Amino acid sequence: MLVRSGILAAADGDAVSVHNETGAGDVVLICEHASNRFPVSALDLGLSQEVRDSHAAWDPGALALAMLLSSRLDAVLIQANFSRLLYDCNRPPESPAAMPAKSEVYEISANVGLSAAERYARMAAFYVPFHDRISETFSARVGQGRRTVVITIHTFTPVYFGQPRSVEIGILHDADSRLADAMLALAPGEPYRIERNAPYGPDDGVTHSLQLHALPGGHLNVMIEVRNDLVRDEPGLAAAAECLERMVSNALATLSEASAGEA
Amino acid sequence: MLVRSGILAAADGDAVSVHNETGAGDVVLICEHASNRFPVSALDLGLSQEVRDSHAAWDPGALALAMLLSSRLDAVLIQANFSRLLYDCNRPPESPAAMPAKSEVYEISANVGLSAAERYARMAAFYVPFHDRISETFSARVGQGRRTVVITIHTFTPVYFGQPRSVEIGILHDADSRLADAMLALAPGEPYRIERNAPYGPDDGVTHSLQLHALPGGHLNVMIEVRNDLVRDEPGLAAAAECLERMVSNALATLSEASAGEA
Repeated sequence: MLVRSGILAAADGDAVSVHNETGAGDVVLICEHASNRFPVSALDLGLSQEVRDSHAAWDPGALALAMLLSSRLDAVLIQANFSRLLYDCNRPPESPAAMPAKSEVYEISANVGLSAAERYARMAAFYVPFHDRISETFSARVGQGRRTVVITIHTFTPVYFGQPRSVEIGILHDADSRLADAMLALAPGEPYRIERNAPYGPDDGVTHSLQLHALPGGHLNVMIEVRNDLVRDEPGLAAAAECLERMVSNALATLSEASAGEA
Repeated sequence: MLVRSGILAAADGDAVSVHNETGAGDVVLICEHASNRFPVSALDLGLSQEVRDSHAAWDPGALALAMLLSSRLDAVLIQANFSRLLYDCNRPPESPAAMPAKSEVYEISANVGLSAAERYARMAAFYVPFHDRISETFSARVGQGRRTVVITIHTFTPVYFGQPRSVEIGILHDADSRLADAMLALAPGEPYRIERNAPYGPDDGVTHSLQLHALPGGHLNVMIEVRNDLVRDEPGLAAAAECLERMVSNALATLSEASAGEA
């Protein structure tokens, strides 16, 4: 039996898209939860419109925010094109969260008891092409001697299991906290409540893309989480993008000066 | 950072090989543990020759037996070309046994605490091409309207954790036991001690390839395990191949008659 085909039809398009591919900036933006799209042919998982619109299916506002940052930083942006409920590209295949049977209060019954063939098919259709495309992009940049700073863009729900969240922007990091530290040092001057590894952090398994693509090569990296009620309209998006561009640019400038001082 | 490259150099060749690709028989043979080879460039895992020669690294005799069966059944044979200690192609990425830190009495210290990037790199280098090749083969056959019977060929160690095993040939199956049942019905006439789901079975997670490739398409399938002391030399291999060809051919003939009787 064919395990790969049948997942994505021609009309579905690719599992991954790249924006501003020739961007000259140092930053590469990654948006794993950009889309709440499901393949046209099948695999809608039988979800209600409520679930499909919810943060369980995607990070609302994350792609729009990432697009603004891509423009401001002249950064290439790599996005996944399908819902995280099919395969969460920020989770490894060995994680139950990769194809979750439950997400917050939402039961995803179509993901209960997935067969090995179904798990393989989804991994091959969604996860592998996404991360291969990032790898190829990084390989090409490294081959050209270009600096590569990895920033993943996410949003989070303002209310989780009925509890409101007060943090507005989370600056998350894994073992390499250089860029996060530099950004957090600038946070007090910004008009948001900004916290480290909040509302969750690396112990919750959310830094998979950083572990895959940034840490092995020693690339500066950070994961940015913005509360999604703050990026629901154009003024909100513009304000968040302006703040984040300033923090990222100034943090990178600080780190460049520091490394120049060491040299 | 590039997560795929660096695993396999050009000198390593492909992760998967296909023998008798134009074979006209109904059977497709799969040999996940065919090889104890490690890439030339790196990734020898620092193992002693003893471990590299042991059943932990591969199934000794399985490829030679599969080649004989390929010839006798005119069957295409798909084999993995690297040691199961790098990636066990009969285990899904979510299984700890995919890149085992321990195998029977052997500690595989190089597999302890693997990073996400390393796990991804091995999965992409070894597991994905192997199963994609099988999928492609099956898709092509199905497209041509050809019958496809899936048989995976394995060997097991005669002594496990110090305990001798008396079973000589195991006929293993997952949810679809049609071919296994038909073969086991013929077992009393064969000069081996032949048992169902022994010395281990589907509950031990050993039927992954069947789950991926046979069950979703409804293809007849079976996993064959031969005790490796019985296939250490040419006479032993020839005897086992003769027995298995007879059992497989007669079982398939019985099943064809049965389905013709139903029609």
